[in-house]
Amino acid sequence: MTVSDRIRIGKALEINPQLFDNENVKSVAKRVLIGKAQGASNFVMRLFTVGEGGYSPNHSHPWEHEVFIVAGVAGVVSDQGEVEAPAGSYVFVPSGVKHQFKNRGKGNLEFICVIPSSADEE
Amino acid sequence: MTVSDRIRIGKALEINPQLFDNENVKSVAKRVLIGKAQGASNFVMRLFTVGEGGYSPNHSHPWEHEVFIVAGVAGVVSDQGEVEAPAGSYVFVPSGVKHQFKNRGKGNLEFICVIPSSADEE
Repeated sequence: MTVSDRIRIGKALEINPQLFDNENVKSVAKRVLIGKAQGASNFVMRLFTVGEGGYSPNHSHPWEHEVFIVAGVAGVVSDQGEVEAPAGSYVFVPSGVKHQFKNRGKGNLEFICVIPSSADEE
Repeated sequence: MTVSDRIRIGKALEINPQLFDNENVKSVAKRVLIGKAQGASNFVMRLFTVGEGGYSPNHSHPWEHEVFIVAGVAGVVSDQGEVEAPAGSYVFVPSGVKHQFKNRGKGNLEFICVIPSSADEE
């Protein structure tokens, strides 16, 4: 749906997800909400949905994450351990820092994760 | 709270808000979750809380917005009218496009709004 020729509005869950489920990542659905395809050239907004017991890969990369926990409870894992981040929390992961998000609650964990377009990750 | 020396985690509502209430903007609380002060140099994540009947200014500016509606119902106003965006919606406002967010629901409207650091808006 479009308000004008240029403002773009839509429901996140109507976007087809990319699904990830392998030895490094479990029960993760990724949706790109706003990115290059929508005309956004500086940064990319994604929504991640992690099923019960699921987790993102434990990795690092040369771009930062700006995260907001929308629903559920995340366990944010770093080299120094794990901290709980319930809905309403923000998480800043600077470039080069190892990190992992685990679903530590009942039901789905949902979080927004923004990255720079230079990440070229989509 | 900090997981490591570098990952930053916190509860959004524990951040002191800037409050806006004048002839152009009504019942708006703005919280900067992740920005330059946290070491983020590319883009800034803010959380806006708009009380019942409240609205952001109807304006345009040379930077884009990437928005996710966390709670409530937004009315997104542009030159071509108003479109409802309930919780779970994304809104992309490109640079230079006039826009306004109104609370069209019961209770608070909450949305994440990301801008480039070049906006120098904080």
